[in-house]
Amino acid sequence: MNEPFAERVRRCQRGLADRGAAALVASPGPVLTYLTGVEESPSERHFLAVVPRDGPPVVVAPAMYGAELEAAPVDRAVLWGDGDNPVEALASAFETAGLEPESEADETTLLDDRLWTTFAQDVRGLFPDTTYGLASDVIEPLRLRKDRLERTTLRQAGNVADRVSMTLRKRGEEVVGLTERELAEEIDRLLEAEGGRGTAFDTIVAAGENGARPHHQPGDRPIEAGDPVVLDFGAFVDADLESGQARYPGDQTRTMVFAGEPPEGYREVHETVARAQQAAVEYVEPGVTAESVDAVAREIIADAGYGDAFVHRTGHGVGLEVHEPPYIVEGNEQALEPGMVFSVEPGIYLEGEFGVRLEDLVVVTEDGCERLNATPLDWACEGACQ
Amino acid sequence: MNEPFAERVRRCQRGLADRGAAALVASPGPVLTYLTGVEESPSERHFLAVVPRDGPPVVVAPAMYGAELEAAPVDRAVLWGDGDNPVEALASAFETAGLEPESEADETTLLDDRLWTTFAQDVRGLFPDTTYGLASDVIEPLRLRKDRLERTTLRQAGNVADRVSMTLRKRGEEVVGLTERELAEEIDRLLEAEGGRGTAFDTIVAAGENGARPHHQPGDRPIEAGDPVVLDFGAFVDADLESGQARYPGDQTRTMVFAGEPPEGYREVHETVARAQQAAVEYVEPGVTAESVDAVAREIIADAGYGDAFVHRTGHGVGLEVHEPPYIVEGNEQALEPGMVFSVEPGIYLEGEFGVRLEDLVVVTEDGCERLNATPLDWACEGACQ
Repeated sequence: MNEPFAERVRRCQRGLADRGAAALVASPGPVLTYLTGVEESPSERHFLAVVPRDGPPVVVAPAMYGAELEAAPVDRAVLWGDGDNPVEALASAFETAGLEPESEADETTLLDDRLWTTFAQDVRGLFPDTTYGLASDVIEPLRLRKDRLERTTLRQAGNVADRVSMTLRKRGEEVVGLTERELAEEIDRLLEAEGGRGTAFDTIVAAGENGARPHHQPGDRPIEAGDPVVLDFGAFVDADLESGQARYPGDQTRTMVFAGEPPEGYREVHETVARAQQAAVEYVEPGVTAESVDAVAREIIADAGYGDAFVHRTGHGVGLEVHEPPYIVEGNEQALEPGMVFSVEPGIYLEGEFGVRLEDLVVVTEDGCERLNATPLDWACEGACQ
Repeated sequence: MNEPFAERVRRCQRGLADRGAAALVASPGPVLTYLTGVEESPSERHFLAVVPRDGPPVVVAPAMYGAELEAAPVDRAVLWGDGDNPVEALASAFETAGLEPESEADETTLLDDRLWTTFAQDVRGLFPDTTYGLASDVIEPLRLRKDRLERTTLRQAGNVADRVSMTLRKRGEEVVGLTERELAEEIDRLLEAEGGRGTAFDTIVAAGENGARPHHQPGDRPIEAGDPVVLDFGAFVDADLESGQARYPGDQTRTMVFAGEPPEGYREVHETVARAQQAAVEYVEPGVTAESVDAVAREIIADAGYGDAFVHRTGHGVGLEVHEPPYIVEGNEQALEPGMVFSVEPGIYLEGEFGVRLEDLVVVTEDGCERLNATPLDWACEGACQ
């Protein structure tokens, strides 16, 4: 098993020991990628990794993934074919890892937070007397502080988003008449052309009144002169890990008016969101809590009279996942630490009118934070309109 | 709540009553879409539906989804904001549905098979004395038999894949020199141009020796003359449901040689897979078991000496999901019924050499089955090479 995965497994096992847990069960997804380098999505087929407190992890997987596992830093695997009973393969994987079904009463096993219930029920069937906890208790602290390679890759993903934003700023009136969906497809093409490996999430293009829905999916509405348009996008960038796959996303939001005169009240709303975003970013430093960053942005928006129109948290962590801890939200008293990466994205959403959201990623440094994006926050149609 | 969702909920509740279950918990994904029309992906935010044995379902969701829920056929919702405790919102949703936390001992609750463990742990925390089963026990039988609208939409998705396949057959030598990834992107563009709404899964383009990996992800390998190329793709098509969203996928595989002379042994392998595919499709009719369809294809491949090289099941059901029951696999004694839709996709994978897979979707009819794809099974470079 190659570094850095061996080091991550060692740190995970120290966490299991500290917690008195016998094993951790990882599902395809970020936890499996983090620990073994295997990059797969969950499916209806039994595919998971058992990480015992001592010794290498054991991956149980469909036989059709055998070649992929050979290429990954995985030393032990139990493969099952389509005619086999996958629950028997699962039991065999636990045995290979040194855990005997039916014999581990009083033990604790940590299940991947995203393990599907159907697989969790199978594990519970094999170990009915075990206590179950969540794998995040051990894995999250490890994943929270990004190492140098992770930070470098996230910065590259930020650069990709910036280059696309700067291209869009120059388009101005050319964008008028495109549908939301056509502009979203154009953004996806630009992200690819700038070096992205696939979009990190479904690109959001929300024009006019659609902007009032934070997660609007682009549709057939044409972009018209004077429309505020919320643009939220990012692409994955590969980390150059010698030992395996790993990709990290960009995530940036700007709200632009490509031509014409914006609706009444827009200028003030945009200015308010930009001020909230800037103040929250400037507030970030080691030791301050996640919720206090949220409060800084929220207070500015509330003072401007739009408190009820800021309907979501201020941000989310970004790493192997586009949404991961730390969450920048009221109630999260976690203190920020150097290496944490998260979004700062306040917004104001006026139902039936328009929305404004402005988002950058930041990485916490020893004495503050660094923006991973460099695109101006203004609404930026080139020309005379602002 | 609109039809057909009200009818689906009624049938689900009859299933709960038959099973003696008090409620079903649905996760964002196909079960939630099937029962409520809400089309969302799971995320770290608490978002689920509680379907009690009597009365309308209650959706608990982040407040930012309020507008989407208003537009969906959902009568009761508990929304929570980013500063709220989502577990309290979950408890409130159960109460609204008539289920009191801590008071439902001896009851059974069915959890969505794909519910993330983190949310299942929260439900278990609210109802520690409840017995837990899987929602598929009730929902799967409902989803297995596609109604007329579903069948029509799946047929349209098959037509989209066919039109792309026929376009590719005409390209011949033009494809030589493209990388796998470039061809995959071209296929995605063609699917969109033919009316697809997004690809149903990551398009597979696997050239030469990469074809020996059934789930190979397209990379930088150029397609060369003489390469067998496995092409596995499909796009979603919208069902024209008056009352909500619903999309159904296409899924087709062909193995083609775009130019030049294929490798030694290829012709026989392709012919064997085509014969197995054709025989399995002809065998399908109501009353035969899923595993017997698998056996028909497998026997032909084994008789040709390639039994060990057919490393996966013969097929999978297709509906709201690209992979769903019925699975066409040894051990599945389920009898086929009219309205079931599944893939028939035998393959032969020769490590270090090439792979061949041929796949169509079929719908079981009263007296046999109908292919949802019409593209010839041959390897089809137009010109002299076969």
